[in-house]
Amino acid sequence: MGKRVSETLADRGEFGLIEAFRARLPTGPAVELGPGDDAAVIAVPDGRTVATTDVLVEGEHFRRDWSSAYEVGRKAAAQNLADIAAMGGRPLALLVGLAAPADLPFDWAVSLVDGLRDEADTAGATIAGGDVVTAPQVVVSITALGTLDGQPPLTRAGARPGDVVAVCGRLGWSAAGLAVLRRGFRSPRAVVEAHRQPAPPYAAGPEAYALGATALIDVSDGLLSDLGHVARASGVRIDLDSPAFELPEPLVTVATAIGGAALGFVLTGGEDHALAGCFPSDVVLPEHWSVVGRVLPIEPAPEADTEPAAVTVDGLTYGESAGHEHFRG
Amino acid sequence: MGKRVSETLADRGEFGLIEAFRARLPTGPAVELGPGDDAAVIAVPDGRTVATTDVLVEGEHFRRDWSSAYEVGRKAAAQNLADIAAMGGRPLALLVGLAAPADLPFDWAVSLVDGLRDEADTAGATIAGGDVVTAPQVVVSITALGTLDGQPPLTRAGARPGDVVAVCGRLGWSAAGLAVLRRGFRSPRAVVEAHRQPAPPYAAGPEAYALGATALIDVSDGLLSDLGHVARASGVRIDLDSPAFELPEPLVTVATAIGGAALGFVLTGGEDHALAGCFPSDVVLPEHWSVVGRVLPIEPAPEADTEPAAVTVDGLTYGESAGHEHFRG
Repeated sequence: MGKRVSETLADRGEFGLIEAFRARLPTGPAVELGPGDDAAVIAVPDGRTVATTDVLVEGEHFRRDWSSAYEVGRKAAAQNLADIAAMGGRPLALLVGLAAPADLPFDWAVSLVDGLRDEADTAGATIAGGDVVTAPQVVVSITALGTLDGQPPLTRAGARPGDVVAVCGRLGWSAAGLAVLRRGFRSPRAVVEAHRQPAPPYAAGPEAYALGATALIDVSDGLLSDLGHVARASGVRIDLDSPAFELPEPLVTVATAIGGAALGFVLTGGEDHALAGCFPSDVVLPEHWSVVGRVLPIEPAPEADTEPAAVTVDGLTYGESAGHEHFRG
Repeated sequence: MGKRVSETLADRGEFGLIEAFRARLPTGPAVELGPGDDAAVIAVPDGRTVATTDVLVEGEHFRRDWSSAYEVGRKAAAQNLADIAAMGGRPLALLVGLAAPADLPFDWAVSLVDGLRDEADTAGATIAGGDVVTAPQVVVSITALGTLDGQPPLTRAGARPGDVVAVCGRLGWSAAGLAVLRRGFRSPRAVVEAHRQPAPPYAAGPEAYALGATALIDVSDGLLSDLGHVARASGVRIDLDSPAFELPEPLVTVATAIGGAALGFVLTGGEDHALAGCFPSDVVLPEHWSVVGRVLPIEPAPEADTEPAAVTVDGLTYGESAGHEHFRG
């Protein structure tokens, strides 16, 4: 017996892969019927389900040489579960689509599913079903389903002038990690790990509702960009207070090394999936929320043909970048 | 002004594309909150949602030179909506993930969404949300959500010896169309069109429940393959009666031209998304259902180490192929 050659998806086939997945996947109490039939059945006792989908493409959203399969799974699950939390909801189930080349190592696919399962578990969800197909590169599509537990959804549209803006969770860590990886480095480890595996504050979603939040979003593209969605949907503008942002040491280290500003990571970095919300000004927030700005009415711009910025920092338009837009380089 | 150069996704960007999609998409009464926020909210009054996901990859599931964007949209929606019907459910909403290269014509993406919308409409559903991202080739991931309207789900596991097996919808048409296209032809048009745009009998799903069906599946991989899932899940075997199958003229034409058997298309061809169900033997079925076989108990195989075939035709194991399996050629 020589050295064991690692198995590929072609060796096990679609049905072998599905069988291996199912053996690793518990189904939670909300999943009335799990993987193995034409569709899954998920209990949502209040008669509504909150649902979101995201697609992650190899080379675009992750690289197999920068992240392990397990980390890709954690991250893919996290960004969808965070969207449920961003509605004030509680995740219940994931559906997983995996497109992959036939020569993908079997272990890679299994580790991906382990990562999906473990991240779902941290949010209280399980994997209820999925699909595996052949493709030239790895594409992971995730749908998260959740419940609002009888509450109305916390949309982007409810912010009112006078509200405070607060954030919960890390900002800029993933972007700093990406900057490091792009330059061929692997440290500071804390930011590299944050890029590979975000840690969204899932419970802060329903908590924001309980605290009286008027609007909520998860920071997937960058705080300025995502608060811009809130401002436009709510018909308000938002001013952030730069001294209110903590600048964690690893972000300062990276910014210094590459000649940038740590605040830039915090304001424009995406993929940490912090939650950003607006709250009545008299709210008393737990310690894990930080007030970083306030909601203002829209004022006519000094020049009539200039659109006022939706989000400003210390009263000024910030820098150049306002997050990532697909198809535009 | 010269000839208008067709716009690409890069010209409009992610946000321009999303805006164009939203302008074309009505939201149905079940969609309490549609596209534009972190997640959608879908009403499922009986407190359960039935959910399924599928991924379609360019080159694997469709070719842009064989199918129009509109047809790819119809087909992608159909195969997911059919999975809801195959549980005895009624589709309510789709979530759509589109991964595409930046140089994809803008009109292609818009026509895809028109196809998704129109197919959803035939099944009573609307598009509730989605995600668009960059990828080297087009990947469409669809999640369908539906309701069981208070009924238990119709799984693959309930067939009992003595039941009859019946089918509703076309069988073999898509496979015959694919055989024609692979040889560089475009006719018979009826089968080519069936390949490009399936027409699943959505209403037959809840109808099967009302008729007392014991098991139900949609024929996505081929009748023998999919009934094999039913037989194994139910702990039974199934024998089909070959004279019971109509052999439509276009299938006979194609089979004759390529030196094959029309029955082969009917028994092993996938992607038409007919529904195949098992019913008590005294069922009175409407005309659009055809009885094609019966459910039998599993008998020990003559040789102890031979696994008995899950599905036979006229008592015999049929041919070589039993449907498509991903990652295996």
